[in-house]
Formats: sequence, structure tokens, C-alpha cells
Amino acid sequence: MSANVPHIAVIGAGAWGIALACAASRTGARVSLWSRSPVPAGCRALPRLPAVTLPDTVELVTTLPEHADLMLIVVPMQTLREIAPKLPGNAPLIACCKGLELGTGALPLDILAETQPGRSCAVLSGPNFAIEVARGAPAAATIAAESLDDAHRYVSMLSSPHFRLYASDDPIGVQIAGAAKNVVAIGAGIAIGAGLGENARAALITRAIVEIGRLASAMGGRAATIAGLSGLGDLILTCTGAGSRNYSLGLELGQGATLADILKTRSTVAEGVATAPALAATATKLGISMPVVETVSAFLDGAIDLAQARKLLLERPITVE
Amino acid sequence: MSANVPHIAVIGAGAWGIALACAASRTGARVSLWSRSPVPAGCRALPRLPAVTLPDTVELVTTLPEHADLMLIVVPMQTLREIAPKLPGNAPLIACCKGLELGTGALPLDILAETQPGRSCAVLSGPNFAIEVARGAPAAATIAAESLDDAHRYVSMLSSPHFRLYASDDPIGVQIAGAAKNVVAIGAGIAIGAGLGENARAALITRAIVEIGRLASAMGGRAATIAGLSGLGDLILTCTGAGSRNYSLGLELGQGATLADILKTRSTVAEGVATAPALAATATKLGISMPVVETVSAFLDGAIDLAQARKLLLERPITVE
Repeated sequence: MSANVPHIAVIGAGAWGIALACAASRTGARVSLWSRSPVPAGCRALPRLPAVTLPDTVELVTTLPEHADLMLIVVPMQTLREIAPKLPGNAPLIACCKGLELGTGALPLDILAETQPGRSCAVLSGPNFAIEVARGAPAAATIAAESLDDAHRYVSMLSSPHFRLYASDDPIGVQIAGAAKNVVAIGAGIAIGAGLGENARAALITRAIVEIGRLASAMGGRAATIAGLSGLGDLILTCTGAGSRNYSLGLELGQGATLADILKTRSTVAEGVATAPALAATATKLGISMPVVETVSAFLDGAIDLAQARKLLLERPITVE
Repeated sequence: MSANVPHIAVIGAGAWGIALACAASRTGARVSLWSRSPVPAGCRALPRLPAVTLPDTVELVTTLPEHADLMLIVVPMQTLREIAPKLPGNAPLIACCKGLELGTGALPLDILAETQPGRSCAVLSGPNFAIEVARGAPAAATIAAESLDDAHRYVSMLSSPHFRLYASDDPIGVQIAGAAKNVVAIGAGIAIGAGLGENARAALITRAIVEIGRLASAMGGRAATIAGLSGLGDLILTCTGAGSRNYSLGLELGQGATLADILKTRSTVAEGVATAPALAATATKLGISMPVVETVSAFLDGAIDLAQARKLLLERPITVE
């Protein structure tokens, strides 16, 4: 292996980790994909994305890679605090999970700053269904870091003609957008599942963009970021694509299934379920009104029923016009 | 009929005219629905929306109503100039068509100002599939007039719990949004039809919002309007819903059908086909870059082929991040 070939470590072999390993390999990099679970020798397709055969340049590992030029962290949001302190070496860390930590309301980069102080960090987020990225269909996303120079450096390491990355210096905005869209997607799913129709969903998404922008601004991010790929782009994808776990969970809820029953049948994580109460709590603490997020959160924790949720998702006035 | 019951005239009995007549009847108004084609006596379901039975308070007429309190004009964009001068009485006119006039680049309210000088006018636009509005599923839209007071007055005449209307004083922004979304929807359909995937479509829509905002600002509208119901909301609906004529036309084009073949099989109007060149010409005249609109326009008129359109729709850099 040439010393000039960059080494990209991908931490987490869920669907999105597999997809990012495939995308990273298309840059010509050597890729290590870390799986927490043991992987049978010779196995080149993983359970979370079984239709995808890993490229030859992706090495499956079960020991956290010591030496890498860049480390993508692709673990569920609620396990980030457990994994983060264990990440070896000093490669810049790119958080690829979306959400807020339950209990603390911490964003991914907050957790990395606490557990890996002084290490360079960024966040990657955009409208990206894993299976499409894995297959090399065209997609775009944002990498945001405090320093735009850093963001540009990571962008140039990870970009390929298939996966176009754009640099941003608004990591707060990008993280808030990524967290909120999963919650809104549950609301959009409820609207469609309950038979309210596509007009209602479009109005709901439009309203949601406004409340997410409000929260991002209050937290020091930029509303303009919410209008970009990691905000609007990801929200559209997640709220309209049957491939979204959060949207499909909302769909079942809207049709009358209980959260407990749905979670029993799923092996994958719908990040919005944990993020909803964390985001609603953050909004309350900051005095920001987030009707869509608050309604989804209240419905998920049983404080309101489906009829009330339907009503609340649609009946509050929209103030954007 | 009580003199206190408002009389709303709906000019045009296409799918959207039928839907708006149903919506207007839910306000308690008396509604006249004008059809250009003769209607068999006793007929209560019309060809353009055969699943919908008209409410009893909707009267089907084939003579343009002389006396009305409000007149909704729901004819195809390219026939507005022919119909507008014939509208009798002095009721305020609400343009409910979306697009630009081919040849002149005129917006709906430009045509009304020319053909009905001095008459009060407004525009209604939002994320509204006709069949859902006709059935009374919840939906929202914007009414924009030069005077916000006028807009509020029309809003109060047409709003119902099923169909929520919001007042705006940015008729330019609302009209540009309504015109552009049909063109972008063709582009979104091409992306999906050509197998580029939902990630690509989400990136495309995100980019389109930026270029539409740019044009709206250059024409004296507000970019904020483009982030609202008549902009973003309608764009999302039109670019993701199989119920959109423009999106489904793009879908067929992306799969390799020719425009001529598709148009042969359709009795309905896909407004984006005529609006694309008109909008591209307006953008060029104003020196505004609109890569998505320009690509769709060039593809529709045969200047570029499908492979080039795919490439152009996705490969230009996004500047929003």
C-alpha cells in the first residue's frame, strides 16, 4: 500500500457506515470499516445493507484503527458518548450521526469536544439514503467545521464525482437540521398515515423549516444553513421517501400502530424517537416555539393521542407568509 | 337565496377549478362554476375530476357570471389573455393559474392589469393537489395582492377549516414561485425517471429554491416568499407527488419517451412545458443564472439530450452552503 494513499476509517457498520465506506473508497482512499459485531472471514456484504458488496479497497475490522488520516463516526446518536472516548490516534473526527443526546441535549460535536478535547472535529450531513450512496448514485452533502479551511480539507478528501461535498462553517446549523429532520419526518409520516394527504404534508414541511431555522438561530447557527442541503434537502428526502426509517415509523403511527409495537418489529434505529423529546426540551429551555417538534414529542410519549396530534400538526397558523 | 350569502364565481372547470368550487362552497358561499364546454343537464361530476360530485351549492354555468362578489380565474396560463377581457362585472379577480405567458413572459397579474385595467386583482397559490382539496382534505395556500388589506379580505372570503389561506403582499414572489415549480418538477421527474435516485432529486430541489429566490428578488419579489407555502411548499408537493402532471411528464422523459409522444397521450396541460422557455428567457433577460430551469428548457426544446440534461441537472456546483 502506497504511503500516499490516504487512509479513511469508518467507525460503525450500519447502513450509513457501509455507504460512507463505499463512497470513501471511490476517492481512491484505503478504507477501514469498523464493525462492533464480529464479521465472518471473507464476508463482503453486511447485514445492515445486504444488497451491497464492499469494494476490495474496504477492509473490515473489529479493532478500532489506530492510524488513519480521517475518521468518520457513524454510530447511533445515543451511543456516541460511549464510543467517542475510545477512538484512538489523532485523525480529525467527522461525526456522521444525526440527533441530540437524550438527557443532556448535547449535539454530536458537543460530545466529541467533551470526550476528545483538542481534536479536530466536523460534521457531515445531507440528503442521503444509504443504499443510493453505497451504489454510487449521485448525491450531495455538507461538511461543517468551525474552521472553513478545515471543512474544505475534509471535503477534498471525501468528494468524488458520485458524492459531492460542500464546505460550511456553520456546524451548529447543520447539526440542528440533521437532528430536527428526523423528528419532522415522523410528523410527516403521521400526516400521510392518518390520511391527511400530500397537501397537508407539504404545508407541514414548510412550517417545519421555519421552526428549525428559529432554533438554529437561537443556538448560534444560521437560518440560511437550514435552507441548504443539510436542512431543506435532507428534510425533503426524509419526509417524502419511503426509504426513511423515521418517516415509515410515523406512517405506521398515523395508521394507528403503537410505538411499542413498531419498535418491537425493528432492528434499526429511528433516531427521531429519542431526538424528539431532547429537541423539544432544548426548544423549551431556549423559549423557542416549535409546534411540529413539540407535537411529535408529545404524541410519542403518550401525552396526546392521534386525533390531537393530527389537529395540532395542521391547525396552528403558519407565520411564514 | 339570501342577499347576505356571498357569490363566488369560478371561471374554468378543469380539475383545479372544480376543486376550488368545492372549497369555496365550504365557506357557505353560493358558487357558480363556469365551464367552457357544454354540460349535460343534471350532470354533477365533471370529466376533469370525475370522482368528485359537486356540492348542491355549486351551480354549473356556461355563460360567464355577471354578478359575483369574487371571481376565481382557473384557466390554463396560455389561455388567460383570451379569457380575461371577457370577464364581466367588477368583482375582484383572483388568478389561480401558474406560469408565464409564452412570447411575452407576462405573469398572470400582468395580463389581468392589461386586460382589466383598474380592477382589483390577486393571485392564489400553494401546495394543492386538486383532488385532495376537492375532497376536503386539509390544505393551505397563499393569496397575494399588492395591498395586504385586500389579500386579507379575499382570505376571509375563501378560508375554511379545510382550506387555510394566508395573506401576502408579495404577488411577484408568489407568481414566480408558482411558475417555476412546474419547470423544476419536470427536472425532478427527469432525475427520478433516469434512475438518478431520491438523493439527487433532493439536492436538485434544494438548488432550485436558490435560483427561484434569485429570480424573485430580481423581479421585485421577496426571497422569503419562496421559502413559504407558495414556494417551497408547492415545490415539494409538485416534485415528489406522482399526482403532479409536470413531475409525471418529467418521469416519462427521464425514462426516454419523447415530449411529442407524451403530449399525444395527454388531455391535460402540463404548464411547465410552456413556462420553461418563458422563464428561461426572462432569467436571461435579467442576467439571472437559473441552471435547473435553463437545463429543463434546453432539454424540452431539443437543444440538449437526456445524457446532457442528467449531467447538467446534477453537476453544477451548489452555492447555497
